[in-house]
Amino acid sequence: MNSDPADRSALLARFSAILGAPHVLRGADAAPFCTDWRGLFTGQALAVLRPADAAQLAACVAACAGEGVAVVPQGGNTGLCGGATPRDGQVVISLGRLNRMRAIDATDMVMEAEAGVTLQAARAAAADAGLDLPLGIASEGSAQLGGVLATNAGGTATLRHGTARDLALGLEVVLADGRIWNGLRRLRKDNTGYALTKLFVGSEGTLGIITAACLRLVPAARTREVAMAALPSAEAMLGLLGLLRRAGESALAAFEYMSGGALRLAVEQIDGLVDPLPSPAPHYVLIEFSASQPDAPLALALENVLAEALEAGLITDAVLAASDAQRAALWRLRESLTEAQQRAGPTIKNDISVPISRIPDFLREAGAACTALAPGITIVPFGHAGDGNIHFNLMVANAPGQGEALMHEVAEVARGLGGSFSAEHGIGQLKTGLLAGWRAGVEMDLFHAIKHALDPHNLLNPGKLLREHHQE
Amino acid sequence: MNSDPADRSALLARFSAILGAPHVLRGADAAPFCTDWRGLFTGQALAVLRPADAAQLAACVAACAGEGVAVVPQGGNTGLCGGATPRDGQVVISLGRLNRMRAIDATDMVMEAEAGVTLQAARAAAADAGLDLPLGIASEGSAQLGGVLATNAGGTATLRHGTARDLALGLEVVLADGRIWNGLRRLRKDNTGYALTKLFVGSEGTLGIITAACLRLVPAARTREVAMAALPSAEAMLGLLGLLRRAGESALAAFEYMSGGALRLAVEQIDGLVDPLPSPAPHYVLIEFSASQPDAPLALALENVLAEALEAGLITDAVLAASDAQRAALWRLRESLTEAQQRAGPTIKNDISVPISRIPDFLREAGAACTALAPGITIVPFGHAGDGNIHFNLMVANAPGQGEALMHEVAEVARGLGGSFSAEHGIGQLKTGLLAGWRAGVEMDLFHAIKHALDPHNLLNPGKLLREHHQE
Repeated sequence: MNSDPADRSALLARFSAILGAPHVLRGADAAPFCTDWRGLFTGQALAVLRPADAAQLAACVAACAGEGVAVVPQGGNTGLCGGATPRDGQVVISLGRLNRMRAIDATDMVMEAEAGVTLQAARAAAADAGLDLPLGIASEGSAQLGGVLATNAGGTATLRHGTARDLALGLEVVLADGRIWNGLRRLRKDNTGYALTKLFVGSEGTLGIITAACLRLVPAARTREVAMAALPSAEAMLGLLGLLRRAGESALAAFEYMSGGALRLAVEQIDGLVDPLPSPAPHYVLIEFSASQPDAPLALALENVLAEALEAGLITDAVLAASDAQRAALWRLRESLTEAQQRAGPTIKNDISVPISRIPDFLREAGAACTALAPGITIVPFGHAGDGNIHFNLMVANAPGQGEALMHEVAEVARGLGGSFSAEHGIGQLKTGLLAGWRAGVEMDLFHAIKHALDPHNLLNPGKLLREHHQE
Repeated sequence: MNSDPADRSALLARFSAILGAPHVLRGADAAPFCTDWRGLFTGQALAVLRPADAAQLAACVAACAGEGVAVVPQGGNTGLCGGATPRDGQVVISLGRLNRMRAIDATDMVMEAEAGVTLQAARAAAADAGLDLPLGIASEGSAQLGGVLATNAGGTATLRHGTARDLALGLEVVLADGRIWNGLRRLRKDNTGYALTKLFVGSEGTLGIITAACLRLVPAARTREVAMAALPSAEAMLGLLGLLRRAGESALAAFEYMSGGALRLAVEQIDGLVDPLPSPAPHYVLIEFSASQPDAPLALALENVLAEALEAGLITDAVLAASDAQRAALWRLRESLTEAQQRAGPTIKNDISVPISRIPDFLREAGAACTALAPGITIVPFGHAGDGNIHFNLMVANAPGQGEALMHEVAEVARGLGGSFSAEHGIGQLKTGLLAGWRAGVEMDLFHAIKHALDPHNLLNPGKLLREHHQE
């Protein structure tokens, strides 16, 4: 990279000419874009650019490519792995002004929206059309569609509808050389060539910058039933899941895990949260059945499953919400777990997935490994059990300096069970070492071959996802 | 390519050493592998290889790579676009002996199977475990999983569960240099790196040869209700689909279109087929509601929708099957359409998709375009209307020599409506010209960049999907 300041001032002038000077941020104005929200990473940006549309964004990328300056795309800056935080002297491209909702079609059940639309705004627009964009993540008020797609976000609705990748029908992407690929097709089936949309989703801005998307929508739920059950063991979770699938697989919308420790910490930390069940249990699940018709007999189906599970010893107690307020209160328990952990002290966040059948093994083995390493540690796992995705979080106040070792232990347990260390949070700059280790060999060679094919000069979010790039 | 026969005999000896001589077919033994089943394409193979496992297959690919000889992977040879047919002097690799069902896990709802397992065998194995592999295509008795994945096959079950790509959780793939990528992970969520599995699916053997897969399964349907409705117009189809989604989107398993012409041709051509409705109509749909629970009240829900649709004038008549035999009879009508057309004379098969909302426009405009070009033509469209996928087939006995022009006209109508000329059949060697035309520019450059990254010497199924490869 050329570090001659004169060259950079020409580039900065070019940005101002493209965007207008108020949309080229530097110094204190740029600082909020240079630290991730968890405060794990801080970098320096040559500038933060706020383009108004894909053409402006593409012109800026082309200008950067001409000077060999790397770019870092950034959405709502809610990522958990530092994927949108610059390192040193890069140009941050903030997508927030690309925030137009272009179209929603209720017959096609498709939304076309720009990358800077927040997930919350996109979901609200879908709801106005009687539809749902089925992605539920804690940061939806700030997270933007482009970032959600770039990290292939998951959340609480993936059990039925899949992750962001499964919802993406088409994309518009600015490439490393500043050209724009328009793949904004609204088709349910399209076998014309390689699966570019699926490839760009989850590539964390390292292959291209997503500027707009066509997303699959689903009918809004008009009947919802929510229950919370206490379980005597993690094994019982699998039995309960089996009963629920048989009773109504197509209605099963959520099967969320809460460890007893995570639930009790939330009730302690957050005013107004109440454990609705009288006796403490080691494991809980939150279950949602939903349907698009207004009068689906889901309460009866769920009641029957819970009665059968109680009789079979798969659960020790359960509560079925009887009103919208009660349903919201049960979901608030689940959704408060992360905030409660942040209030309670320093945490290690893990984002493990394993085959669903191995969840009990994972919880047992990972717990044993962490306790062996740090006897005083508090283990507060929760997650999306129906997807095999467990956030095996740890309160590490009693384990100073052991964060990396603990993360490694948990990942190794998952690895032994055929799992993944990154189910839905991505790699960013936090987990590039883990990725390089786990996927070493043929798979890493394929990643680098694709990276080199689409970004030969390593200008798109370098050092993210891939630790280093074999440049020629 | 080196055409010195001496060189080739060394290569052939190498194949025999790897596979055993009986699994290296030549001459008359190789001929059945050198013509596609529609008889559109015939080529010459240096040899047809029948490896027993991925290691043997990889060794053969490595041997070919060393000599610069191209390979053509072939499954059940049921493709519709000549994607598995060799051109001249290539080595065909038949996957049929890689036919082990490695595992089915009912808790994970995952199957791991080798590429040569037939779709029918895979579905039977899933059914034995109380599950379903939700891919329904006419050729399932012969089609193999590897080919189904390589073409991203669709069929009659995609409305609810997506195409082959949506079901693929992980793959094992032999690469152009003979190395094996083992990506056989059984995870519902895995964000460790680029979406290689999704990229290989649908790449038609041009980026790698799929040798095994982990596939997502779903619970078997234990309640099924099937109806057939007559519609006064194509527009009414959209209204009916809307009513069905509201009444039970999560139960809606099929929404299949049959034109009046296609249905009447089938009843004429195939003994024992009966139109269950008394008066002819211009359009029909076959509807299936299904659920995993044995006693779901789907008949009532479907009856109510049909009554509402009749009252609203969206349908003119309907029949709801009252027994398994009646359900099978309705499905047989739909499934006989292709065979009936083949019996009736030469056909042009189109594989169009459009946004669902544009189906009526497509049917009207494509019909007008074909009739203008060939006034005597018989138009017999049908397809997967819930996915926007219409096989706009034409009986061309009265339009000799106009096949290509008609295909072009139909594709152009789809293009004008934001559609695709290849929804589920792929490109093969039949549609490379269309692909090159439609996706010219940035998108074609991306295709070639990826092809070159993964197959730099153009040895994997050359001339398929991509018309030509920019070799260096």
